[in-house]
Amino acid sequence: MTEKGSAVEAEAIRRLLAEYGRLLDLRDAQGWAGLFLPEGEWIGGERYGAIRGHAALAEFVTREFSTTPPSVHIFGNMAITTEGERASAWSRWLLVEPDQSGLRIALAGQYRDELARTGEHWRFRRREVVVDLPLNA
Amino acid sequence: MTEKGSAVEAEAIRRLLAEYGRLLDLRDAQGWAGLFLPEGEWIGGERYGAIRGHAALAEFVTREFSTTPPSVHIFGNMAITTEGERASAWSRWLLVEPDQSGLRIALAGQYRDELARTGEHWRFRRREVVVDLPLNA
Amino acid sequence: MTEKGSAVEAEAIRRLLAEYGRLLDLRDAQGWAGLFLPEGEWIGGERYGAIRGHAALAEFVTREFSTTPPSVHIFGNMAITTEGERASAWSRWLLVEPDQSGLRIALAGQYRDELARTGEHWRFRRREVVVDLPLNA
Repeated sequence: MTEKGSAVEAEAIRRLLAEYGRLLDLRDAQGWAGLFLPEGEWIGGERYGAIRGHAALAEFVTREFSTTPPSVHIFGNMAITTEGERASAWSRWLLVEPDQSGLRIALAGQYRDELARTGEHWRFRRREVVVDLPLNA
Repeated sequence: MTEKGSAVEAEAIRRLLAEYGRLLDLRDAQGWAGLFLPEGEWIGGERYGAIRGHAALAEFVTREFSTTPPSVHIFGNMAITTEGERASAWSRWLLVEPDQSGLRIALAGQYRDELARTGEHWRFRRREVVVDLPLNA
Repeated sequence: MTEKGSAVEAEAIRRLLAEYGRLLDLRDAQGWAGLFLPEGEWIGGERYGAIRGHAALAEFVTREFSTTPPSVHIFGNMAITTEGERASAWSRWLLVEPDQSGLRIALAGQYRDELARTGEHWRFRRREVVVDLPLNA
């Protein structure tokens, strides 16, 4: 892959990162799990540990969001580095939820990603989710 | 257009999407309307319907923002797909406003865009604005 | 530089913009200052004036953040224009902090950047930080 090609790949990766949030906010557990490689991992720190593979990922999201309010995930600060069929990314996320008087930012954190291209599609090999605020979350 | 060119076009589209928010927060109704094609449409759901063409768009923004507090629109999660002189995009937005005790997120939603390039410039053919939160907004 | 190359450069600039927030939220004053050219400037309006050069920049961040709560800076709406070894950028930022009952947006504003490439790296020549909300901040 040429250096020029890397900008096209980064664009495709941005679409993947956006899709992660869109499907999560839709509670589309199967679609969301499908953004990972078959053996891909979602790593949620001490609280959640590592969730691996499509079936476990879909089950995890279904369970975790079964009792939560509707959400909007907004992402920014995307730093993407591609190298052939692999890439890494760092980005920021906010979770916005309704509360009694309007909307609130429930959580704020960062994603650390390892990505792989399989054929036409970029997928998560490993997404590590760090919650930065609130401190005791 | 080559696949490589699509990354350059996506960059130009990101500038357009940013300009939409910048001009809106400046209350520059004419400049903002000029980001649409002459027959371009802004679609605001049941509440606002479809606003079509530069004059109607500028009038709409002037009217809607005449009594609102100052705003900051922040955008993220931009998923852009280009195909020659056309493109589509999906993205997230938050509307931040002052309230009694500081700042609040007044609204959170998504944009669904159809874009077209005319000469040097990308413009909105159709921007659909969906409010996701609060649920009853 | 070809037009195609500009998308690769924009990608590198997005990594720089993300790194600015990441290092700031880590309170890594030296690393953060190193994102500027040796004579690079951070311009903070009437309140802060212009801070110039690595030593002054690092000292500034160390001092300003010595008594502040932990932060998450989230960035969006990045509009990047490259021209060879120079570039300009406009973007939006929110500063998220903990408060008594959860998280709040403490400040919201815009960045206006002039950037330069030195060898492999893009650096800030001049970053102007504008606070838009709250109005009296």
